Amino acid sequence: MNVLVINAGSSSLKYQLYNMKTEDVLAKGRVERIGMDSSILTHEVEHQPEVREVSEILEHTTAIKKVLDMLTHRKFGVLRNIQDIQAVGHRVVHGGESFSQSVLVDQEVKLEIRKLFDLAPLHNPAHMMGIVAVETNLPDVPQAVVFDTAFHQSMPPSSYLYAIPTVLYRKHKIRRYGFHGTSHDYVSKRAAEFLGRPLEELKIVTCHIGNGASCAAIMHGKSYDTSMGMTPLEGLMMGTRSGDLDPAVVPFTINKEDLTLNEVNSMLNKHSGLLAISGISSDMREVVEAMGEGNEKARLAFEMYAYRIRKYIGSYIAAMDGVDAIVFTAGVGENSDALRKEVCKGLTFFGVYLDGQRNAVRSQEPRRITTDDSRVSVLVVPTNEELLIARDTFKLVQNRSEKKSE
Amino acid sequence: MNVLVINAGSSSLKYQLYNMKTEDVLAKGRVERIGMDSSILTHEVEHQPEVREVSEILEHTTAIKKVLDMLTHRKFGVLRNIQDIQAVGHRVVHGGESFSQSVLVDQEVKLEIRKLFDLAPLHNPAHMMGIVAVETNLPDVPQAVVFDTAFHQSMPPSSYLYAIPTVLYRKHKIRRYGFHGTSHDYVSKRAAEFLGRPLEELKIVTCHIGNGASCAAIMHGKSYDTSMGMTPLEGLMMGTRSGDLDPAVVPFTINKEDLTLNEVNSMLNKHSGLLAISGISSDMREVVEAMGEGNEKARLAFEMYAYRIRKYIGSYIAAMDGVDAIVFTAGVGENSDALRKEVCKGLTFFGVYLDGQRNAVRSQEPRRITTDDSRVSVLVVPTNEELLIARDTFKLVQNRSEKKSE
Repeated sequence: MNVLVINAGSSSLKYQLYNMKTEDVLAKGRVERIGMDSSILTHEVEHQPEVREVSEILEHTTAIKKVLDMLTHRKFGVLRNIQDIQAVGHRVVHGGESFSQSVLVDQEVKLEIRKLFDLAPLHNPAHMMGIVAVETNLPDVPQAVVFDTAFHQSMPPSSYLYAIPTVLYRKHKIRRYGFHGTSHDYVSKRAAEFLGRPLEELKIVTCHIGNGASCAAIMHGKSYDTSMGMTPLEGLMMGTRSGDLDPAVVPFTINKEDLTLNEVNSMLNKHSGLLAISGISSDMREVVEAMGEGNEKARLAFEMYAYRIRKYIGSYIAAMDGVDAIVFTAGVGENSDALRKEVCKGLTFFGVYLDGQRNAVRSQEPRRITTDDSRVSVLVVPTNEELLIARDTFKLVQNRSEKKSE
Repeated sequence: MNVLVINAGSSSLKYQLYNMKTEDVLAKGRVERIGMDSSILTHEVEHQPEVREVSEILEHTTAIKKVLDMLTHRKFGVLRNIQDIQAVGHRVVHGGESFSQSVLVDQEVKLEIRKLFDLAPLHNPAHMMGIVAVETNLPDVPQAVVFDTAFHQSMPPSSYLYAIPTVLYRKHKIRRYGFHGTSHDYVSKRAAEFLGRPLEELKIVTCHIGNGASCAAIMHGKSYDTSMGMTPLEGLMMGTRSGDLDPAVVPFTINKEDLTLNEVNSMLNKHSGLLAISGISSDMREVVEAMGEGNEKARLAFEMYAYRIRKYIGSYIAAMDGVDAIVFTAGVGENSDALRKEVCKGLTFFGVYLDGQRNAVRSQEPRRITTDDSRVSVLVVPTNEELLIARDTFKLVQNRSEKKSE
């Protein structure tokens, strides 16, 4: 079975086509500048030169049409015809309280996602455009939705509630949801496998550190707490997001700088974090490089970034009263040995001792980077959110077929 | 020497008169509803009935005049005449980056406090009214100011900076300041004395849990991090304050509920926290009582409140890479054994084992509430912010006299 994974944004759309027998990526690419004069489709197939096509793509239905054309293109394509796509899986950022797992798309599901537009106004409407666009182009192909929030629905109220008037929760569903759930779920399971111990017995702190970043306390296989909140702004310092902040800074800044609500949101989400403090980049590689050249702002940004991860790890160890493993994953977490070292250097009290050589190894496989006598294991476990979406989609479609044939 | 301690609010003013030889409180009281038709002065002297006087007090100078009249009152007073007040100490909430210790008031100091009005618009202007009112009534008496923020000025930038555009720090001084500094300073010193170890070798997490509440990481006698931020809103869940919150919740709520900036500030500072979640009270005693009667909202509020303290303790242990002692202080911290138990039950991984009997003891003396084989000591250390202000004031005035006589 081939599964097409779609991550639709408001003016962009990313795709990956998986062969689920081998879990190989047959092709991947993205459409950018949807709705503008010259949209760009970039298409990649392994071992072949990248294809770029500029055209006018005014909305998502046309974008999907273009992607399907490319996937079945005589020269650049990888499929004979579009019937070779047996299922489509969508990443959906916000599943609110309605979804605690991935589901196949039907009318009811679409209605629920629409109800959540308020909570994720930048993301969910775009995802819905993606879903409708696929529906229009591939009316007979089953679609699944995989939510960033679903895994964290197991959190207890003491973790997910904010200490604000409860009417705001009842009326507007203001609470902690958490994100990166697919990844936290996956790497905690992989960590248990790697450790050869039942997940149900383990306390794990997972650190998904990419351009967006979050920590989670995974107690016995379930999310017990996580650092992102109602939106992905809360928690760790990120590439361009502020993370935690005195809530009073928001009205203070609105007042002092005469900002609109959109402007303050944009400031905190797009112009803060590593980028703001380093003054250089939102990309950890560039910050580490500048730090190596003696840039003091870059060093400060790096230290703040690591310090906040370390504090969350400590707080989640307290939350679970223990920890068996700490897991690093995602772009920065998997690739920056400098960051992992900076985070872990302050965790010796908990029994964490990094092994310098192990930490320096790069690999696509899960690995331990602590010494053998370290009381707590620190692991690096590569994640792959697109593959996880493809797998969930595949599983849902298979289950349905089995049910039908019963 | 007698020292009068003043805590001036915008429409209220609290006072305590100390005999510094014995550190006894000779008298204390408060003026409420300043600026309204019928202001109320309440005056207390030990072993005597409380005195209440209703009159028109339109501003702070009159309020101080009334207090001085009461202190020297033929029947209710404790002083022969106002010359028996040798110094006045003021609590000042915000010292910004200008003050890292208590100082005697002069023109320059008053100017600096005025510059900080922006950062603490509800507090500093009121404190200044108090200072001027004393100056008018007692022109020859030295005054000192003791800042809630001063002790935390030792924090490194990685603790005090927010990950937002640095122009906001340069232009508006937006950063973490922390509060309750006098108390965190005092109880960490007392803890070291109690443990019989040099403060310079210790890592201590102090939990000042009153109606306002904050934790601090005290590394070798200096504040390394603290939970309150630019304002006292950030950090722990408090009596009526929300504490930590996804910053995106603020613009979201402003938009959904059509609130002004003042309204959202007031909501988060006055109508949130324990009060909002329990639906009963901002007073921990009433919440614990309701919980005992089976009230589920009260139980949830209690659990959230404790859970957040526990998480901060964990994060500060990670911040310092270790902890020798955890200290509870202030109204709730000193008096609620139920809360201390709930916080500490999740800290066994760190080597914290509460002794039920020790935890139940009430005393005005510092005490250990962990078992003898507990790796980390948990102490209860009573604090007294008014006395600490009196002591600082006394010390500053004495030093000045010594210098003058040299």
